[in-house]
Amino acid sequence: MKSDIEIARAAPRRPMAEIGAKIGIPEDALIPYGRDKAKVDAAFLKGLEGRGEGKLILVTAVNPTPAGEGKTTTTVGLGDALSHIGKRAAICIREASLGPNFGMKGGAAGGGLSQIVPMEDMNLHFTGDFHAITAAHNLLAAMIDNHIYWGNHLGIDTRRVVWRRVLDMNDRALRDVVVGLGEPGNGFPRQTGFDITVASEVMACLCLATDLADLQARLGRIVIGSDFERRPVTCADLKADGAMVVLLREAMQPNLVQTIEHTPAFVHGGPFANIAHGCNSVIATRAALRLADYVVTEAGFGADLGAEKFFDIKCRKAGLSPAAAVIVATVRALKMNGGVVRADLGAENVAAVTAGCANLGRHIANTRGFGVPVVVAINHFDADSEAEIAAVQDYVAAQGCEAVLCHHWAEGGAGAAELARKVVALTEQPSRFAPLYPDAMGLFEKIETIAMKIYHAGEVVAAPQIRAQLKAWEAAGYGDLPICMAKTQYSFSTDPSLRGAPEGHVVPVREVRLSAGAGFVVAICGEIMTMPGLPRVPAAETIGLDATGAIEGLF
Amino acid sequence: MKSDIEIARAAPRRPMAEIGAKIGIPEDALIPYGRDKAKVDAAFLKGLEGRGEGKLILVTAVNPTPAGEGKTTTTVGLGDALSHIGKRAAICIREASLGPNFGMKGGAAGGGLSQIVPMEDMNLHFTGDFHAITAAHNLLAAMIDNHIYWGNHLGIDTRRVVWRRVLDMNDRALRDVVVGLGEPGNGFPRQTGFDITVASEVMACLCLATDLADLQARLGRIVIGSDFERRPVTCADLKADGAMVVLLREAMQPNLVQTIEHTPAFVHGGPFANIAHGCNSVIATRAALRLADYVVTEAGFGADLGAEKFFDIKCRKAGLSPAAAVIVATVRALKMNGGVVRADLGAENVAAVTAGCANLGRHIANTRGFGVPVVVAINHFDADSEAEIAAVQDYVAAQGCEAVLCHHWAEGGAGAAELARKVVALTEQPSRFAPLYPDAMGLFEKIETIAMKIYHAGEVVAAPQIRAQLKAWEAAGYGDLPICMAKTQYSFSTDPSLRGAPEGHVVPVREVRLSAGAGFVVAICGEIMTMPGLPRVPAAETIGLDATGAIEGLF
Repeated sequence: MKSDIEIARAAPRRPMAEIGAKIGIPEDALIPYGRDKAKVDAAFLKGLEGRGEGKLILVTAVNPTPAGEGKTTTTVGLGDALSHIGKRAAICIREASLGPNFGMKGGAAGGGLSQIVPMEDMNLHFTGDFHAITAAHNLLAAMIDNHIYWGNHLGIDTRRVVWRRVLDMNDRALRDVVVGLGEPGNGFPRQTGFDITVASEVMACLCLATDLADLQARLGRIVIGSDFERRPVTCADLKADGAMVVLLREAMQPNLVQTIEHTPAFVHGGPFANIAHGCNSVIATRAALRLADYVVTEAGFGADLGAEKFFDIKCRKAGLSPAAAVIVATVRALKMNGGVVRADLGAENVAAVTAGCANLGRHIANTRGFGVPVVVAINHFDADSEAEIAAVQDYVAAQGCEAVLCHHWAEGGAGAAELARKVVALTEQPSRFAPLYPDAMGLFEKIETIAMKIYHAGEVVAAPQIRAQLKAWEAAGYGDLPICMAKTQYSFSTDPSLRGAPEGHVVPVREVRLSAGAGFVVAICGEIMTMPGLPRVPAAETIGLDATGAIEGLF
Repeated sequence: MKSDIEIARAAPRRPMAEIGAKIGIPEDALIPYGRDKAKVDAAFLKGLEGRGEGKLILVTAVNPTPAGEGKTTTTVGLGDALSHIGKRAAICIREASLGPNFGMKGGAAGGGLSQIVPMEDMNLHFTGDFHAITAAHNLLAAMIDNHIYWGNHLGIDTRRVVWRRVLDMNDRALRDVVVGLGEPGNGFPRQTGFDITVASEVMACLCLATDLADLQARLGRIVIGSDFERRPVTCADLKADGAMVVLLREAMQPNLVQTIEHTPAFVHGGPFANIAHGCNSVIATRAALRLADYVVTEAGFGADLGAEKFFDIKCRKAGLSPAAAVIVATVRALKMNGGVVRADLGAENVAAVTAGCANLGRHIANTRGFGVPVVVAINHFDADSEAEIAAVQDYVAAQGCEAVLCHHWAEGGAGAAELARKVVALTEQPSRFAPLYPDAMGLFEKIETIAMKIYHAGEVVAAPQIRAQLKAWEAAGYGDLPICMAKTQYSFSTDPSLRGAPEGHVVPVREVRLSAGAGFVVAICGEIMTMPGLPRVPAAETIGLDATGAIEGLF
């Protein structure tokens, strides 16, 4: 059995001009980055405005478990399957973060025969987008301290600067730092820290912006802290937005690559799925919809976090109307949701699978609650027994839904052809998509609505100062913003060990943050790590080039 | 009169395949980065080994003044002029640093009709090389703190870690920081700081390495600090070298672009000219020499720093033998070296020009001292009077040398055709190149030799602990390394206000640093800024995209 990286490396690639031509992108609108990556020219995309749009299909999943669900693999497999049955299809996924590859082994873009290539580039510098975001983010940080250094005419309260710096690196020593030490010429000492680049609000802005002008407007609205009168100070106050958008001009153009089966894949943007919304850029999704008849995309984590934010933040703000959703489940993951520990996954356990289906069932109901037709994809693993698969299918059928067994990992697009046909049929139904809550609802009520309706919580608790902060933001004109929930991805609750479908639990909101540029309010319910560390033995220690110049140890 | 950026933007570009073909690079050995930049495939370069090499021509200059000398402009102009007279020529220069563009207006790559394009890309992300260097550098930093966090089995003395972090940003607040604050999970607090990326030893390693294997060996030798027994701890001890070289795999491939007149230009690497050696990569120079008959390159600052390091570090270590050197002078710069202040540059002053020629004269003698034939290029400015030009030419003739008046800024390569013919004639002479001092000389003696012979200093002073440190490095096996002098570029002395050709001055060595990976010992003689700050009104405040999407304010 070949590994993912062996399959990816061995896969013959078609010229990018041919990949672009599949969805009507002329060769002169493809800006090459290496031989098998391209950016799609902004001017060409501008010319597509007003075109009819294809069907948008969201791939989401049950709550993730260590067993693995294969959400990206299914996204790729479904894209290839749609191509396989003769549809004009495209895929939209996020770019990968560089830093974490040096901690644990790097993430593939899919798996088996359902992968996007070139995998190594996508896990390293790719087309440089994240480096550009790092530079733009840190330019703003430098301009903040520079402004203070030269007299601080805006009266920035150095104790209340919330804009940190970023690096695309797992570096725990940078979480909490004091800068400006040494001597007067180095500025005023203050406490701050670094996040990983995917946690940058610049990343979220880029992913939600519709064009460069919108991006600049969003960057300008970023609140970097407050002045001594507690009034917000913005990026525009510091006049940093213009230079930042210059740094992001190329990064704003979507990247085009291909699957092993040569389906066009847009890989663009990669905001965190906790303190940000966790899906690829609006500009890539919009471009794909104007160019292809079926666009398969995914959202981070399980449907409780990923799909909810996809619907309530991305689709709401971009005016996207998803035509169908695929919820990925595996027998293994449902078994774990049913209480089985990882070591016992190999043994058949129909009862546990059935018990775990409660998790799946709630995601089905939640997703349908947004007015989006749903199909379940069972991502097949060799150890799955027929009885276990049947148990899932029976459970899903009892919900008035269908679970399709898929073999795309082993067989590529052909292995998910049935899923593709089912999805096409679903998208023929009229779309009744609507977000969960209206813009006008109060910020705390929005949090309660998500917690009650999606998580089935009994109560949301928050300290008075958190409620007061939300009220203050409403008074300052931020009340219309959607909520970006940051909680554990492993449970509907805020307790990662609570699998299945818990009811009546308490959701504690520990902190709220305003992302005025991205356009959401983050509600943090639990420990959220915005700068990871490296493990005791980092993968970096065994990463290197072999005698042939190929990368080893990265995957 | 058009500005440099207007000229650069208006210049029609030829396809990269055509530029590559001029020097025998097949299209499939060009890896595209955008439409007008390419990397030259490492495998193709490997295949050139053993080929005969063209003539290497160094462009250097008198000590820089605010009047401007036009060293890069002359490098480009001479390259174009060699093409113009029918020679197979290529140019090799450094890449530009991103960060400083947001402080002062960005630097052009040449000027007038002697420019390399695309200018904007070259001043922004270009092909991402510096971002890769930043990532590789900071990975090592993260692995140092991670090692300490997980038990510090190497016994690294946290007070003696000399490896800092880097960002390609002017950010004075990061010069001196404390990391690892907050809580035990963030590691052990220690004092450190950030340098700008061009000051990274990783940059110097990449620029001196002959291939990826050599690069990895150099990275492995980097000394990051010492253990509690004061023994050096290296990058290889931390097993970071393999992952770093993976991050640098693409960055190690030289970038190819073109001049306005379509001469091939390698733009690759950009080490600081003070704490590093200040010239483009060995791999680019070597590639150019194997592909072209004449290769024009430049070195940072004036000949006292730039040419000396080019000869004693780059040429010595890479086995390069320069065939000729061009010393760029302007009437304006010589006038300032003769004591005229900037405001009075407009008025004819033959006496001041003649007095300032002492500076030029010493650079001529020094450069000839390396066994390299010299010609002076007078980079013409409109305000130069005939008498002033004649004064320079007479002075240079009296040194047994020739000064050629050049009009490449206004006329392109045709304006430097006479210089090109003179250079070709010089390179017909047998090369007698030899470095200034032998490898075996003691480290302090090497410093003294440079100070006495090149700077005409009377004495080198250094505290006993500095001399002891040099002795300790000799004992540890680093005695064979060349010296990298870090002093002001404005004078032969360490006093920036001392123009002309001072004699008998004192050179104080304030600090020495070991760059064991790059392969030199840095002698710091004066204040060296390794992390610049932004000015009161940074250029970033007026940088932005105009209504057409073009960048404004950057140049």
